[in-house]
Amino acid sequence: MPRKKHESQAGTNATLSKAWGGRFVEPTDPDVERFCHSFSFDRRLYPYDIQGSIAHVRAICQAGLLTAFERDQMIAGLKKVEAELSAASTCLTPLPSQEDVHMYIEHRLIERIGPVGGKLHAGRSRNDQVSLDLRLYLRDQTHTITKHIKSLQRACLDQAKKQMKVLLPGYTHLQRAQPVLLSHYFLAYYEMLKRDRSRFSDSLQRLNQMPLGAGALAGNGFGINRQAVAKLLGFPSVTANSLDTVSDRDFVVEFLSNAAMLMMHLSRWAEEWILWNTAEFRFIELPDRFCTGSSMMPQKKNPDVLELIRGKTGRVYGALTALLTIMKGLPLSYNRDMQEDKEPLFDTVDTLGSVLPLMTKLVIHTRFQDAHLKDALDEGFLLATEVADYLTRKGLPFREAHRVVGEIVLTGVRTKRPLTDFTLQELRGYSKHFDDDIFDCLTPTGAVERKQGMGGTSTASVQFALRKALAEIKQ
Amino acid sequence: MPRKKHESQAGTNATLSKAWGGRFVEPTDPDVERFCHSFSFDRRLYPYDIQGSIAHVRAICQAGLLTAFERDQMIAGLKKVEAELSAASTCLTPLPSQEDVHMYIEHRLIERIGPVGGKLHAGRSRNDQVSLDLRLYLRDQTHTITKHIKSLQRACLDQAKKQMKVLLPGYTHLQRAQPVLLSHYFLAYYEMLKRDRSRFSDSLQRLNQMPLGAGALAGNGFGINRQAVAKLLGFPSVTANSLDTVSDRDFVVEFLSNAAMLMMHLSRWAEEWILWNTAEFRFIELPDRFCTGSSMMPQKKNPDVLELIRGKTGRVYGALTALLTIMKGLPLSYNRDMQEDKEPLFDTVDTLGSVLPLMTKLVIHTRFQDAHLKDALDEGFLLATEVADYLTRKGLPFREAHRVVGEIVLTGVRTKRPLTDFTLQELRGYSKHFDDDIFDCLTPTGAVERKQGMGGTSTASVQFALRKALAEIKQ
Amino acid sequence: MPRKKHESQAGTNATLSKAWGGRFVEPTDPDVERFCHSFSFDRRLYPYDIQGSIAHVRAICQAGLLTAFERDQMIAGLKKVEAELSAASTCLTPLPSQEDVHMYIEHRLIERIGPVGGKLHAGRSRNDQVSLDLRLYLRDQTHTITKHIKSLQRACLDQAKKQMKVLLPGYTHLQRAQPVLLSHYFLAYYEMLKRDRSRFSDSLQRLNQMPLGAGALAGNGFGINRQAVAKLLGFPSVTANSLDTVSDRDFVVEFLSNAAMLMMHLSRWAEEWILWNTAEFRFIELPDRFCTGSSMMPQKKNPDVLELIRGKTGRVYGALTALLTIMKGLPLSYNRDMQEDKEPLFDTVDTLGSVLPLMTKLVIHTRFQDAHLKDALDEGFLLATEVADYLTRKGLPFREAHRVVGEIVLTGVRTKRPLTDFTLQELRGYSKHFDDDIFDCLTPTGAVERKQGMGGTSTASVQFALRKALAEIKQ
Amino acid sequence: MPRKKHESQAGTNATLSKAWGGRFVEPTDPDVERFCHSFSFDRRLYPYDIQGSIAHVRAICQAGLLTAFERDQMIAGLKKVEAELSAASTCLTPLPSQEDVHMYIEHRLIERIGPVGGKLHAGRSRNDQVSLDLRLYLRDQTHTITKHIKSLQRACLDQAKKQMKVLLPGYTHLQRAQPVLLSHYFLAYYEMLKRDRSRFSDSLQRLNQMPLGAGALAGNGFGINRQAVAKLLGFPSVTANSLDTVSDRDFVVEFLSNAAMLMMHLSRWAEEWILWNTAEFRFIELPDRFCTGSSMMPQKKNPDVLELIRGKTGRVYGALTALLTIMKGLPLSYNRDMQEDKEPLFDTVDTLGSVLPLMTKLVIHTRFQDAHLKDALDEGFLLATEVADYLTRKGLPFREAHRVVGEIVLTGVRTKRPLTDFTLQELRGYSKHFDDDIFDCLTPTGAVERKQGMGGTSTASVQFALRKALAEIKQ
Repeated sequence: MPRKKHESQAGTNATLSKAWGGRFVEPTDPDVERFCHSFSFDRRLYPYDIQGSIAHVRAICQAGLLTAFERDQMIAGLKKVEAELSAASTCLTPLPSQEDVHMYIEHRLIERIGPVGGKLHAGRSRNDQVSLDLRLYLRDQTHTITKHIKSLQRACLDQAKKQMKVLLPGYTHLQRAQPVLLSHYFLAYYEMLKRDRSRFSDSLQRLNQMPLGAGALAGNGFGINRQAVAKLLGFPSVTANSLDTVSDRDFVVEFLSNAAMLMMHLSRWAEEWILWNTAEFRFIELPDRFCTGSSMMPQKKNPDVLELIRGKTGRVYGALTALLTIMKGLPLSYNRDMQEDKEPLFDTVDTLGSVLPLMTKLVIHTRFQDAHLKDALDEGFLLATEVADYLTRKGLPFREAHRVVGEIVLTGVRTKRPLTDFTLQELRGYSKHFDDDIFDCLTPTGAVERKQGMGGTSTASVQFALRKALAEIKQ
Repeated sequence: MPRKKHESQAGTNATLSKAWGGRFVEPTDPDVERFCHSFSFDRRLYPYDIQGSIAHVRAICQAGLLTAFERDQMIAGLKKVEAELSAASTCLTPLPSQEDVHMYIEHRLIERIGPVGGKLHAGRSRNDQVSLDLRLYLRDQTHTITKHIKSLQRACLDQAKKQMKVLLPGYTHLQRAQPVLLSHYFLAYYEMLKRDRSRFSDSLQRLNQMPLGAGALAGNGFGINRQAVAKLLGFPSVTANSLDTVSDRDFVVEFLSNAAMLMMHLSRWAEEWILWNTAEFRFIELPDRFCTGSSMMPQKKNPDVLELIRGKTGRVYGALTALLTIMKGLPLSYNRDMQEDKEPLFDTVDTLGSVLPLMTKLVIHTRFQDAHLKDALDEGFLLATEVADYLTRKGLPFREAHRVVGEIVLTGVRTKRPLTDFTLQELRGYSKHFDDDIFDCLTPTGAVERKQGMGGTSTASVQFALRKALAEIKQ
Repeated sequence: MPRKKHESQAGTNATLSKAWGGRFVEPTDPDVERFCHSFSFDRRLYPYDIQGSIAHVRAICQAGLLTAFERDQMIAGLKKVEAELSAASTCLTPLPSQEDVHMYIEHRLIERIGPVGGKLHAGRSRNDQVSLDLRLYLRDQTHTITKHIKSLQRACLDQAKKQMKVLLPGYTHLQRAQPVLLSHYFLAYYEMLKRDRSRFSDSLQRLNQMPLGAGALAGNGFGINRQAVAKLLGFPSVTANSLDTVSDRDFVVEFLSNAAMLMMHLSRWAEEWILWNTAEFRFIELPDRFCTGSSMMPQKKNPDVLELIRGKTGRVYGALTALLTIMKGLPLSYNRDMQEDKEPLFDTVDTLGSVLPLMTKLVIHTRFQDAHLKDALDEGFLLATEVADYLTRKGLPFREAHRVVGEIVLTGVRTKRPLTDFTLQELRGYSKHFDDDIFDCLTPTGAVERKQGMGGTSTASVQFALRKALAEIKQ
Repeated sequence: MPRKKHESQAGTNATLSKAWGGRFVEPTDPDVERFCHSFSFDRRLYPYDIQGSIAHVRAICQAGLLTAFERDQMIAGLKKVEAELSAASTCLTPLPSQEDVHMYIEHRLIERIGPVGGKLHAGRSRNDQVSLDLRLYLRDQTHTITKHIKSLQRACLDQAKKQMKVLLPGYTHLQRAQPVLLSHYFLAYYEMLKRDRSRFSDSLQRLNQMPLGAGALAGNGFGINRQAVAKLLGFPSVTANSLDTVSDRDFVVEFLSNAAMLMMHLSRWAEEWILWNTAEFRFIELPDRFCTGSSMMPQKKNPDVLELIRGKTGRVYGALTALLTIMKGLPLSYNRDMQEDKEPLFDTVDTLGSVLPLMTKLVIHTRFQDAHLKDALDEGFLLATEVADYLTRKGLPFREAHRVVGEIVLTGVRTKRPLTDFTLQELRGYSKHFDDDIFDCLTPTGAVERKQGMGGTSTASVQFALRKALAEIKQ
């Protein structure tokens, strides 16, 4: 027998209970309500939910489900709910029956404008709605993060411009290897960030498709014009398959995987500068305002920002692992497991949003200790390859030249003499190919300037790369 | 004092010892040799190593380091080494001193053509060489995998064409939700695979840059024309920064992350078909030749292929985790940790190479049990949303319509009656909006055909989508 | 020249600024302050921080650094700060200079009791302090989680007791395999949870060591009696090495790894019950109060709790990945990266704290659909192994018996006849070893009861296992 | 109609085809055969498979399924197959129908001893068999790894004994913090390894249970005495539930998670020594035989072993991720996905088996550069905490003392003067509490020796810890 009360009491108590309660005979267990509740974290989607709902209202009006008056009433109501939420304290706690930001907004709309608010959800399911909200949110965030990356790239280019005369010992295996321009070093990070940016830009293409109208999984039965909705919301196209649309979280996973690679780059940078900031390297000095002290040891000035950047790599990798695990083996289409996508995503967005600007500040304000950089170039036989190259140019097979120089280095190590200390006569004891001009090879600047090809560390090559980068970044 | 013997004895014993031994006073510890050895797994790079070496030979000849005669001698020698390796048994074990595929090839070249072979490595380091080999390899593999994905997409389209009359209960939360066309289902996987393919295609752009000439980290001192090398090897451009070039494994991580998403899709599919193949669902029947039995239970016919596809998702996720972990916090530029990139990459390439063709076979050969699909549509109130939509079209706010239908369903559940069993009079007991035409709504076909928007499951929408897909796949 | 003001103004403004500010010449950058701030999440440690501080106060008093009066003053002050925090709203926002819960408490103590509060931190560093707080917290949480696991185990035993007459088709490869007692099934989860519990109990031993007194990394210079502090705080022993103590987060990683395995078990269970709850399996029915509906489809009753349990496996795996990543390659001793340990840990503790009681409720309240279980035993040739075993007992090698029965099954499949339908004459056509007594083998109950060994599914074996479990759980 | 041939032709062709082929109407697809084949990697289980099969033969003989003659025939046959496999080349490729090591051995047994070999598998399934093989294997490997850890711990204790007079600057945040004994440092790693060892020992308890007799999932129907089998194979007990037994891979996951934590420790150590081995730190010198060179740069001597140890952390984390992913959401009991457990496990066992002995060698043979260690103690204000402690002992609240010393350090930094350079008068300008005895505080040795509590770095404390460790390691 029908429970008649409901139809007549629309808009009062009944309306405020669960939106899907009709088929249920007992109230939800309070522990279950708490467990399933997502308002505390999906609340941040509210501007996008309102924006999407307004577009949906226009679409169902056009489809004949609303009068123009109802449409305007609903749009005005939605804007008021938005203002309300925008003003609300972060401690706002909705009723347990208002499970998530979507149901909360629908409830508040009905409370404000009466039963007509119940027309909002025609032809829509939370399955396509949450996909829309997430896409709108992530589109915005991708733009913001892209801007942050660009600022960091710009800081690199500024440093590259400034440091064109400073030489740095380049490392492999954390052993001194060959001298490079400090500008060249900054351009290396510029390149990594360029790839990061291009990955976010690629994933944005896949994300930037309008999901609304997919309904619960099969599409909608009201002839909603999805292309028109897409246009209203600034999407170049609509998603192609309703079943896929509500099952798909690729755009979240892809964002997280781009974020993981970006954090990988920043973790390398942070590690490097933590090293450079030690008493042993002393290549850089971090300003006091970017460091913190010890509660116990009065002398400490710790590079906490860099350490936290490196550490936060863990949480981003963890977010990626979480999403991949969640999606593994889920049959189509929507499953509630997918609600677990939000917290790792939001946390990652927040992490990138704080990490990138701080790294930019550090790049701008960190001072290089030129004297220590210079000292470091003198020890460690960084010019050995120059000598081998010299012999090669003289006609010795490189493999032989390598061996000959290896033995000279060995003598140098044992007798604590740098390569510049050897006389021509001594050198000729190792190979007849040595001549007076060998000493031209034995300066860090010479070593740097001989690396003239595209992408090499000579001043000319670096200036070429810098000009190219400056042109790119302007676009 | 110099150890003169070396220069004169080039090409004999001395040459066969370590390529970098000059500076060392004691032989490498045998355990260390075993530990660092990578020939057993990097051997598969040999065709790319040879290809790259030949291009390098041409480049250093052009740079004046080789005569034309020497160049031809070296190219001929390299081709012989290639033939030799291509004929060799998989059990070939090189000397401990031939640490990796690169050193092995250089050694063999010198053995074959004498000391002139020692000229090969001028202006090159294993750091840029291995980057080249990996990029050549992965470019090839990306093409192969892309082809495999395309075949699987084609199989989906074939099925979509064939199954245009078959209805499937669509699921959310693994509960029957709404009827969809089986063709629509296959197009959903087509879309996922389309995103997969576009990701591999995007990452290929970033991969497809020529690294040789970056040297150990600073560039090379011989004026090698990198653009010419790129042209020889079919790369549209060269990498932009030598320091970045030898530090960069983004192309590996990105490939693995694309692979992880692809496997995520396949794991969902496998899970679904494992379910569909149970005695409980019986939607599909797998041919015997794709199943295996039990060593103990004579009746078993198990969907092992699908289970292994689902399980192999783990190894691909694991490979991604491995690489991200390896690269985390490594200071620039090359570090030996990066040698650990190969096994996870190769394993993932092999996994995709076996999993994709098998899935394609399954899509082609699996039989659908139409009778069971049909039965499944009759139970579970899959048409409830149609009724709510009906009431909405009659002017009832959707939220109210939802509640009304929820109560009808509740009565249906309690009295074990499907929606089609209710009389108009009964229905009007729930809402005055019901009329004779409600019964037109209560067929699965009707439900399907009403989903007419772009991306919906109506025959027209699906045929539109299919045509679009057929056009895309041809490109 | 000294800034004299500080010493004289203790307890006023100066005291309220950063605790470690003496050596710094500029204030911390506000972005850095926000970035490094941890109060919002480490606040939950306050009861443990106060408890530890009180023990420390007693210890430094005993070491002669405080008078008895000062000691009592400080303990009273700390208790007041605790009361204050316990009453404070969750929105409490400390000053930026009060970086974390430790500094906040010290600041508030000094504000309350004056400069004497500045004596609190003698011989202590945040490095050993945070290790103590985390250990106290995690010891408590491990006990709570252990209790939750025990409750879930008890629910399993209650069901095992109740369901001793109900038969379930056991599955391998999700294909029906052999009948088992439903009680046997519940005891399987009992065993998994038993291992989980024993892992938490083992890790508790390693966790339960008192770290205070390790100082920043080297120990403390005030002769603090660490064993006495341990006794006050209920630790059986102290950590053995100060350097290790402040570098060590094994106890966090180990907890997370135990949690990951527990969630792995629950994800399997959840998956299984999601399947059992489908329209296709219908083995169980979840009460309405544990389900939720759809915003669009009025008929839906979805097993959201089970789906979220399965999904939350992702976040726990992610937390483990995060911690392992964070700790990888960190040189000794403390690094700020380690602050990133808290949020993944707290999130995991909260997840287990909600997931376990809900699973327990589900085990207690879910109803089994005996009729559908029974039906499922009749199809699928679950007794084929019984027939092979029969032939084996008659002397046929098992491998032959397996093949013979395989052929009978094949005929059965083709002719749609169950094994019970074959006549003796027909069976003898497959093997002469068949005799009248074969039909005794062909009942599910007979199959179950023949599995009499330890750990088998016969009633006797299961009752033995149940008695053993009931004895264990009481301890 | 039965295919009679089979029963009569046992032992010939028929026997050599698939063991479970009876119910199948078409041969397995060759791609499927390749895909499912596991002999190439599970081959290494053969000694355990044979050992388990011999115990099983004894058990089914005792259960009346074999005569004593048959039993002896089978045991002899199994031993011959073992000898055969032990002698076989690593390139041995079994027939496609011999899917795995278990089926291979059964096939070879039947080929050797005729149809009676077909009796081997009575009462057994590959599901319990593979669990047994893996447990036997992993029990052995756990013992081996435990021995390796113990050797590494012993190397630490040897160094701790030797280095009792050497001081090391202890670090936090990679900034010099306080001096510690080098012996204290080695004991820190001793402690980490002690926890690792205890984790392996705990997991061994859970692993060390005999699974055979669980059958496919329900137990066995032949009254096999599982306790007797356990005794034969050296297990203290049998697994408690057949369903759990064949579903359970906890022992693999737990091993991998222990391995991940061990590698985490080694990655920290490796990182640290890579730093210590730089031109900047110069705390250690690695012998040439543990280093390798560069193919291009003649001067390079790289710490490849340490880098690879650090890098191999990635593959072990990856293996853990793989297994956790594989097991997530698998319904009971056995699923073929679980075959994917072996390669990550074997790879991890091999990794630990090579990494641990190499680290031990490095600990034994690495030389400490005492002069550089000494120099490093003089810069960086490592004694600042001593001064603050001094003032605290004089009655100044520690927080004030910290601030005073912070300001002295600031002056020192600005004027490039170490603390020892300040006169008493200058110091009294900062605090009246300074007195003549302050200068006793200003030696690294004094700082070390004041850390006298349990676990501190004073000589007495370290010697106490060393004695305790030496006693432990002997057990």
